[in-house]
Formats: sequence, C-alpha cells, structure tokens
Amino acid sequence: MIAVLKHTATKEQIGNLVSWFEGQGIKVHESEGDYCTVLGLIGDTTKIDIDMLQSLDIVEQVTRVSEPFKKANRKFHPEDTVVDCGGVLIGGGNFAVMAGPCSVESREQIIETAKRVKDAGATLLRGGAFKPRTSPYDFQGLKEKGIELLLEAKAATGLPIVTEIMDAEHLPLFKDVDVIQVGARNMQNFELLKALGKCDKPILLKRGLSATMKELLMSAEYIMSEGNEKVMLCERGIRTYETYTRNTFDVSAIPMLHELTHLPVVGDPSHATGRRSLIEPVAMAAVAAGADALEIEVHPNPSKALSDGAQSLTPDMFDGVMQKINKVRSIL
Amino acid sequence: MIAVLKHTATKEQIGNLVSWFEGQGIKVHESEGDYCTVLGLIGDTTKIDIDMLQSLDIVEQVTRVSEPFKKANRKFHPEDTVVDCGGVLIGGGNFAVMAGPCSVESREQIIETAKRVKDAGATLLRGGAFKPRTSPYDFQGLKEKGIELLLEAKAATGLPIVTEIMDAEHLPLFKDVDVIQVGARNMQNFELLKALGKCDKPILLKRGLSATMKELLMSAEYIMSEGNEKVMLCERGIRTYETYTRNTFDVSAIPMLHELTHLPVVGDPSHATGRRSLIEPVAMAAVAAGADALEIEVHPNPSKALSDGAQSLTPDMFDGVMQKINKVRSIL
Amino acid sequence: MIAVLKHTATKEQIGNLVSWFEGQGIKVHESEGDYCTVLGLIGDTTKIDIDMLQSLDIVEQVTRVSEPFKKANRKFHPEDTVVDCGGVLIGGGNFAVMAGPCSVESREQIIETAKRVKDAGATLLRGGAFKPRTSPYDFQGLKEKGIELLLEAKAATGLPIVTEIMDAEHLPLFKDVDVIQVGARNMQNFELLKALGKCDKPILLKRGLSATMKELLMSAEYIMSEGNEKVMLCERGIRTYETYTRNTFDVSAIPMLHELTHLPVVGDPSHATGRRSLIEPVAMAAVAAGADALEIEVHPNPSKALSDGAQSLTPDMFDGVMQKINKVRSIL
Amino acid sequence: MIAVLKHTATKEQIGNLVSWFEGQGIKVHESEGDYCTVLGLIGDTTKIDIDMLQSLDIVEQVTRVSEPFKKANRKFHPEDTVVDCGGVLIGGGNFAVMAGPCSVESREQIIETAKRVKDAGATLLRGGAFKPRTSPYDFQGLKEKGIELLLEAKAATGLPIVTEIMDAEHLPLFKDVDVIQVGARNMQNFELLKALGKCDKPILLKRGLSATMKELLMSAEYIMSEGNEKVMLCERGIRTYETYTRNTFDVSAIPMLHELTHLPVVGDPSHATGRRSLIEPVAMAAVAAGADALEIEVHPNPSKALSDGAQSLTPDMFDGVMQKINKVRSIL
Repeated sequence: MIAVLKHTATKEQIGNLVSWFEGQGIKVHESEGDYCTVLGLIGDTTKIDIDMLQSLDIVEQVTRVSEPFKKANRKFHPEDTVVDCGGVLIGGGNFAVMAGPCSVESREQIIETAKRVKDAGATLLRGGAFKPRTSPYDFQGLKEKGIELLLEAKAATGLPIVTEIMDAEHLPLFKDVDVIQVGARNMQNFELLKALGKCDKPILLKRGLSATMKELLMSAEYIMSEGNEKVMLCERGIRTYETYTRNTFDVSAIPMLHELTHLPVVGDPSHATGRRSLIEPVAMAAVAAGADALEIEVHPNPSKALSDGAQSLTPDMFDGVMQKINKVRSIL
Repeated sequence: MIAVLKHTATKEQIGNLVSWFEGQGIKVHESEGDYCTVLGLIGDTTKIDIDMLQSLDIVEQVTRVSEPFKKANRKFHPEDTVVDCGGVLIGGGNFAVMAGPCSVESREQIIETAKRVKDAGATLLRGGAFKPRTSPYDFQGLKEKGIELLLEAKAATGLPIVTEIMDAEHLPLFKDVDVIQVGARNMQNFELLKALGKCDKPILLKRGLSATMKELLMSAEYIMSEGNEKVMLCERGIRTYETYTRNTFDVSAIPMLHELTHLPVVGDPSHATGRRSLIEPVAMAAVAAGADALEIEVHPNPSKALSDGAQSLTPDMFDGVMQKINKVRSIL
Repeated sequence: MIAVLKHTATKEQIGNLVSWFEGQGIKVHESEGDYCTVLGLIGDTTKIDIDMLQSLDIVEQVTRVSEPFKKANRKFHPEDTVVDCGGVLIGGGNFAVMAGPCSVESREQIIETAKRVKDAGATLLRGGAFKPRTSPYDFQGLKEKGIELLLEAKAATGLPIVTEIMDAEHLPLFKDVDVIQVGARNMQNFELLKALGKCDKPILLKRGLSATMKELLMSAEYIMSEGNEKVMLCERGIRTYETYTRNTFDVSAIPMLHELTHLPVVGDPSHATGRRSLIEPVAMAAVAAGADALEIEVHPNPSKALSDGAQSLTPDMFDGVMQKINKVRSIL
Repeated sequence: MIAVLKHTATKEQIGNLVSWFEGQGIKVHESEGDYCTVLGLIGDTTKIDIDMLQSLDIVEQVTRVSEPFKKANRKFHPEDTVVDCGGVLIGGGNFAVMAGPCSVESREQIIETAKRVKDAGATLLRGGAFKPRTSPYDFQGLKEKGIELLLEAKAATGLPIVTEIMDAEHLPLFKDVDVIQVGARNMQNFELLKALGKCDKPILLKRGLSATMKELLMSAEYIMSEGNEKVMLCERGIRTYETYTRNTFDVSAIPMLHELTHLPVVGDPSHATGRRSLIEPVAMAAVAAGADALEIEVHPNPSKALSDGAQSLTPDMFDGVMQKINKVRSIL
C-alpha cells in the first residue's frame, strides 16, 4: 500500500502517522520528494481501512498495490479451485451447464424441464423457490414447496440442484440442496454471507448490479473467511445506461476474474440480456472467453398462451444452444 | 399499462392474451394500427409482472402509465407524510438534522459528540453499531454494545437515536432505538424490509448504490405493504464513472421524489461525496432543493493523530455548516 | 409512436394536439381510458421530436414503437450490407481483421508491422495518423506524414488501410485511404458525419464512450442520409464504474445491432479492455457473438525498453490470437 | 507521479525505465520493497503518457499525484478567474444568469424572450442557432439567420449573447457573438477546441455526457494552451442509469471544480433534468452549492397549442425562479 502525503504535512504529523502504522505491525518506507512525501507500507495491510486513511487531512492519495482479498487471491493460491457440486465438477477445466426455469411453478413443470435439459446436456438443474422481486405485489416463489419439488426433480433425473437463498434463517430448508445461490441484490448482505461461510455447501455468488469485480471478490472473501472455500462467482450483467438490453454482460470480467482469483467463474446470459434472441450469442461469447459454467433459463412449452413467449428458452431452443456451446468448448 | 403487440401477432394469440388479462380483472381496450396493435390495460395492473409480459413473443413493448407503487404514491395520498421520530417531526415542513459519528467507538466519543451536535442544533443523533463493510477484515462495529452506548447518549442529551440494522434477527436489540436505518446495500434485502414492515418504528431507507428512484419506492412499498407507513427515503449518492467524488449526489432526486411520493426525503452529503470539503456545499444544495432532513457525519476531535483528519466534520466545522443550513432554511 | 396524455388534459387541448399531428401528415388513433387518453400515431413519425412532445404539459409519456432510424434499419433492408474496403469485403458472412499500431511512428515501424500482421492473417492495416488525446500535451500523431507512411506500407504489402479522421477539413488528405475511421469522441460530431456522408468511402464509426446503440445508429443515419451507405459500426467498450478494465466491452451489442441493422459490426478488444492479457479472450468472445470484423492493436517488438510492454500485442502474440480466432470462425 | 513496478521486474528492466525517465528530464526516486519497487517521478510529468506507462509489462500501477492540467489548475493560479462576457462579469463573486430559448425560431420569439428575461433579471441572452440533434431528421437550427436574429435581440435589449458552435469553419459567423458555447457532444472535439483557443472570446465549455471532471479540465486546457484563457465550465448533467430525469445533475461537481480550478463554474438545470418542474429546485441547489452562473431555458408563451408546454420555463415562471435564486444568492 502506498500513501502519498500532502506537501503541507508537518514532520510531526508524518511521525505520528508512521508510529501508528508501526503499531499495527506494518513496516513503513518513507521517501521524500519536492512536492510530496510517499510512504510505502509493507506487511499485512488488509487490516488497514483505506477510506479512513484517505480521509486524513495530510493524505493526498492512497493506493493499494496488493489486493485486499487473500483467500480468493490467485497470487496466494495459483491453482484453479475445482468445486464439487453434488458430483458435478466445476472449474480447472471442468465445464458445466445449469439450466431450468426462473421459478419453480409445479411438479410437472420442473420435472419435465429437468428431463429435457438433461437430455440436451445440462449437468445441473436450476430453479427459483424463493424469488427476490422488485415489487411486493409480484409472485414471490413457492418457497419450501418449491425446494421439495426441486428435490423430486433431482430424484427423477439425478441432476444436482441449484437454488437461491434470501435469508440465513431459511438455511435449514436448504440441507439437501446441492448449490446455494446468492442473488445479485444480496451480494453485499454480509450477515447472509457470513452464515453461508459456516456451512459446507458450494455457493454460487452472483455479481451485484453495480458491483465492481473487487467488491465481488470481497464478498467471496466474507464466505471464505468463515471457512467455506467452495465459492463460484457469476457474471450476470451490470447496470449501465443502455436500454436495449436489461443489463450489460461484462464478458471481460470472465478472463479478468480468472487472473485475479482461483475460483470458478460462471456466466448467466439470461439475466444479463433479458432477451431470448441474445442468449445464444452471449452464451457462446462467455464460453469463448473462458467461463467455467453457464446458467441458462429454460422453460417447457405448455399449452397456455402466456408461457409461449417467456424470455426463457424453450427446451428445443436450448438443444440448439447446447450444440453451439459444445462446438465452442471443443476448440478451446 | 399499455402493451404494444408486434404486427406478426395472430388474432388467436391476441385473443388468448386479452382473455388472460380479463381473467385477472383487467379491462382491455384494443386499438389496431397498420404496424401494430395497442392494448390499453385498465384496472389494478400492479399485479401484472411487466418483465414477464415484455418477454412474450408477440409483445413489442410494455409501458406502465401508472406507477407500480401504491401506498407510497402521492397520487393516492396527496398530503405530505410527517414522521414522528421519538418526538422530532420530519416532513410536511418539519426539518431535522441527524448528526453523529460513522461508528460508535466508545462512551466518551458518542456522549461528547451527542452534546456537541445538540448544541450546534442537530435534533437527532446518528451512529453506527452494526457496520456493513466491504471487507470482512474491517471493523464491523460494536454491535449490541454500540446500541447501549447510543441509548446512554440519548439519556444524556434527550436526542432520539438513528442506527442501522443489518439482519431481521437483530430486531429485538432495536426496541429502544427511535429510527431504524436500512443501508444502501440492503435496500433490496426484501426479507429484512418485510420484517421492518411488521414493526412500529420509523424506518430511514437509503437508496441503493445503483437503485433507480422507482426501485427505492418499491422497497418502501415492501415496508408499507406490511403495515408500517413511517418510511423516510434517503438520497446518499449513486454510483457513476466519476472518481473525484466517492459517489454522485443526485440532488434532483429530492424534488423528483417529492413529486412521486408523500414520504419525507432526507439527504446524506457525507456518504455521497466522501470528501469533507464538499459536505457543506452539498448539504446546502440538498436543503435548497427541498430536503426534509439531513444526515451528517460528525466526529469529535480527540488527541490521537489518526482521528485528526477523519472524513467526518469536527464539531466546530459542524457548527458552521448548521449556521449556513439555517440561513438557507430561513428563505424557503 | 404512442403518446399517453394526462387525465387532466382538456378536450380542447387534445383536439389541438391531434390537429397539429394531422397537419404533419400523421394519422391519429385516439383511445380514451379511465385515467388517461392514448394517442396512437401512424405514419412517418421520424420527423417528430420526441423530447419536445414529452415536454408538453398534457403529455404523460411518449413511446416510439418504430425506431427513428430508417436507412440503417434492418426492417426496411433485411439483407446484410457488405462493405467493400479496398477489395476486402466485410459483412454478410465476410470476416476481416484490421491490425496495426495505435499510432504510426516511423516508416520502419509501420512497414514491419504491416508485413507481420499480413503474414499472421490480418486483411487490413490500421494505424493512427491524427490522434485524439485527452491531454493537449500528449503526442498528437504524425498527421499527413502518418498517412503517407501508411500508404507506403500499403504499397509494400497490398493491405488496404484504415485510419482516423478528426476534422472534415482534413478530408483531402484521406483521398487514398481505404477506410475512414470516426473515433468514439467524434461519434456525435454531426458536422463531420455530414461531410463523410458526402464522400464515397467506407466509414468505420466507433460507438461513443457512453452512447446507446440507438444513438450509434442515429449517427450512422447522419452519414447514410447524406448518401454514403458504406457504414460499419464498431463496439469498443463503454464507460461504466468498473476500474479493472479501461472500458466495459458490451459483447451483447454485437448480436443486438445485428437484429436492429443490416450494417456490419466490428469489435475492438484493444481499446475496450486496455489490458494485453484480455485481448485474446475478448476477441474470441466478439467472434463467437458474431462480429463481422475485429480491430486489434499490434506493435512490433523493437529493442528500446519502453516499447517492450506496450499494451498492443506483439506480432508473435498476434499470431497466436489469429489462430484462436480462426478456430472460432471455423465452427460458426 | 508514482509508478509501482511488479516484483517480477528485473534490475535491467528497471534500469532501462529509469534511464528513459531521466532522458525526459524527470528525476526518479527509487524505493524497493519486499513485493514491489516504487518509483517516485519528480518534474514535469504532464508530458508522460500515463496509459502507455500503465501498459508496460513491468508496471503494476501508475498514479498521478499532481494533476495533468496546468493552466486550469488552481494550484498554480489560486485567484478566481473573472471572465468579461460582453460587459457582464462571471466568476470571483460575480454572478450571472443566461436565459433564453433552446432554439432561435423567429425575430418575434427571440426579441420578446430577450425583453422578458431581461426584465426578470437575466444578464445574458442564450439561444441556439446551430443545433446538434441526435437525429438527422430533427430541426437543425436557423444557423447564420439565427445568429443575425440574436444580434437583433442584443441590439434591442443590450443583453450580451451566448450561442453554440459546432464546427471551427463557422467561426467567422461568431465574430459579434459575446460568448461561444461548446456543447456536451463536442467537449472532446479537439480540433474545434484548438481553433477556439486561438480566438479572443469567452468560451462556455459544457461537460460531456459521460466526461469526468478531469476530462472536462483537460478540454479546457486544450483551449487555454492555445492562448485563450477565458474559459467557463458548465455542469449540465451526466448520463446515469436513472430514467426519471434526462440526466443526473452532478451538484457536487460545482464545489469540486472550484477546488481544482480557478475557472468559473456554470450550472444548467434545464438540460440536466429535462423536466420543467425540477428546474427551480435544481437551480437553487446549484446556486447554494456555489455556481458562478446559471443557464436556463425560457420560451415565450405564444398562442399555438404546441408551445404551451415546452420544457422551457415560461417568462412568468422564470420570474418566480429568479426571485428564489436571488434570495439564495443574498444569503451566500
């Protein structure tokens, strides 16, 4: 960490600051210029609160040289982490596809979808039981009943299941779930992250709508620092000013995160784009950029008018996407 | 709500959709153009899931004419809501200032600050006991001990207290707190919002880092729809690409929210700017734009080197800011 | 176009507005609801100024159903446009790679780079002669001399050349240039666009740093409406809050633009990411998402220390990227 | 400027880099840590291309300690600049209001508006003759005829005039204009900025839609480095994800720019918000935050239905806003 001090800083103020750092076990390397003094801080600076430091009157600027995340950092853990998701491996060259409906709606719906996506090549089943919705008046999911239906679909197909948690209190309901998902809105629900850090299940952590990659990694660090290192990160689109797409899929986050961390990186083209026609090209882009897994919404094609056009792919369309994805995978 | 259907929609598809709407108790007004068919939907459309509708194959575009929030909507509640915060009124012409340290650190610190901000004219004491921090390695607050110290400061000064909650499980600890704050990162922690909707205390709901005003109002609606209508909204800066300031204070959100809702609107210049020198001008701007209250960080000026320069105002600086604010208030 | 009028609009005001539309040759379809009146506007609404309309007191909301771009619109021109760039075709299944240094620096540099990128499979040579720089104190390019050197490199290799224009006055210097590039900062320099619309050369129009796709298409429309329909669009990263990458490459813009327009879409992974290590994965993602061409910075590897690490790829690295790109192309 | 080198940098590489800096006349202060080497660069580093440096393989991070702008920098010019705009002073405590229609439409319109805004207290007349429009099909302004009409209005009222330039070629038409405005879209049209740097007229430089304050200052530097130091900066809203307002008015940019530069700072609440009801509160906020001037759209209230509701204020509304502004000014 490097702190640049203002040229107005007095010797006494600088001395006080240096002593304080040394009291924290940090070695300080001072170099004085014409216009400023530069302090190089060596040691475990993850404990230093950069905002506090930046706000000191005598400080011009503070820059971290080493990243504030440790357990998630590739520098200290160069090998790819491989996460075992109910028998399906993700990361370190192991590729997987999680597919299924946005929400679990009924036994028929989830079992039919599970069978269809399995046939097409998906290796995990996703489905929402607890649904975070912007409006309190929108459908909030089947909750525990939804999890039961997912477990039935798992029994019927053998596919491990992925489903979202919204509150630490619900954890007991997730005891047979294979992968617990943390949604974008809860990426910085730190109490939830800490609770998940104490359980022994793979966590799929989605990037917040306007979270930086560093914040995403710090949220992973919350889980890992409590003991659970089975964390997977998910790029699912960030909020920008563009309106043709629901969010902007940050494809460069995939290779960038691979540089920064050893954790697997998953791409979610469905939520990122919000447009069925864009799912295939964005899924292919994510795979070409090195994603370790994809999460894709698929909904069966029942007879009611309304479901006809859901944003999700139909199982037939998903077949086509899987073939394209497999082609891209084959050349990597 | 208006749904524009694609010119490729068949009569049968349109008929199915219209029947489905009618089944939801919504009157449909159909008008056919050369290039598209337009459906005007009249009735309680708050229950309609706009994303789902938008994703149908035959739908080109969906536009809400009426807002999806009801209880927070000024159209249905034209009078300003006045919230009683432990005896201090906010809204409807009643102006208040909440001041105090970012975190409660010690008995001396919080009591001294409380006395000083009271003398300067603050009417509520703020202080963090549970602290949401990006890093798990940063100070997480004194927790229950912090709330106890706030209550001691309240006893010493008579100032009602405002402090942040991070998890619904902690609610019993807040039973003597006057105003419960929901931080930006938890603005869409819907389980927490629902729990707060069941208690009978004023809630200060901060706008998420990249939340639209509509999403902020929908989060207020989560609390209100459970029965608690004592909600105050807080503009505290949104995330943009600018780096000189920590966030960008959206001053136009103050009058815009006043148009959209009857709830009081609070401005927080400290978190918005992250720079001590900007707190005064941005506080004045917020007041000039019609804020019903301000929340400002103030920290006493102890002898240790480190606290010298904290981003918070010193009590002396706060005195100055209060005088300027009072001048602006006097001409409104 | 659909205009929703406020319920406070009087019959007379509505009548005036309807007459005004009819005076513009637009058919109006009125439908009255309980809370609002909806006007469906049929005809050539591209002439209607949506901002002006939106600002009328009696108007609640205006929504365009058809896009405001005509010549660039795929609806009116379903076939892909193929642009002939000095003999190299781009679009409609024809794929090309434009490679070369950010700036032309010397005869040796540009000729060596041209030879190396040609050997690796590039089909056009790019190089900056006029350089838009944020700072007036930074190198502004070799200008006319730079164009001369590019033409020498073209003579030596046969590669058509692509270079950026910054002012319509410089157009005579571009008479032997094969493709004229408009940089992101000039995407809405309308006087320049109009001048380019009057010349008969392919234009590579880069998306502005915070331009929506619609604005990009409207800028293409400026060129096309003056008569020059040889326009190619380029996604080169948009500005977001993320700081690990220079910009955020909007990969979904590639398929989205392909839906909206018949013009070729080019991806520029070098400017988007600003990091050498991300160029290959983002290039592959762009190709997988359907890009018609790529623009990649390549710089030879001379002996001076400084150029060692330039952000641009070395020719050897470019060889590797071309092989990966060709593999992805082969499966599409 | 501080460059942090990677721990993988060899002694030879570091030596080469240090020599290169010294060759540029920059003193290098090297300090070696356990994990990295830090170079402190002292001297005129404005010539150093930070992007190029950042892209070197051995460089981890580069941070500017001093700002890259010199002539606009308050450090080197602590006194406020006062710009004489045809007799009206702006900056250094001198406050002005520029008011008038978005576009000049006719002699009657502009002369009536000029008289009305003068009566209400405006000190300059603004009006668009050349109009940058997103669509080539929208009204592009009366051009030279518009400037003639502005000059007539000036003759009739004595108000100096402000109008926008879109191309350096048009400069001769601006010879009697008092203040030349550069619009947001042309903030980085560097050829135009350089041309304006060679003339002797006040320039009102508007912040680009997604320009950082640093980029705005660098654009001012382009003008100033050519000799023209009469530059005024204008905050007019930046692009964010929020949709209730057209742009987000960055009120904190006003005091922040005042810290960074000695140039006057103008606020434009009309373009920032795009909503008539927000102009008054945002104008008051801008003044409370220390703006040196405001630019406000005012349009007379003719009998045609369409102009009734234009976003611009009517002259009567403008009277009210001026009274409020004057009150806020009176307490500063």
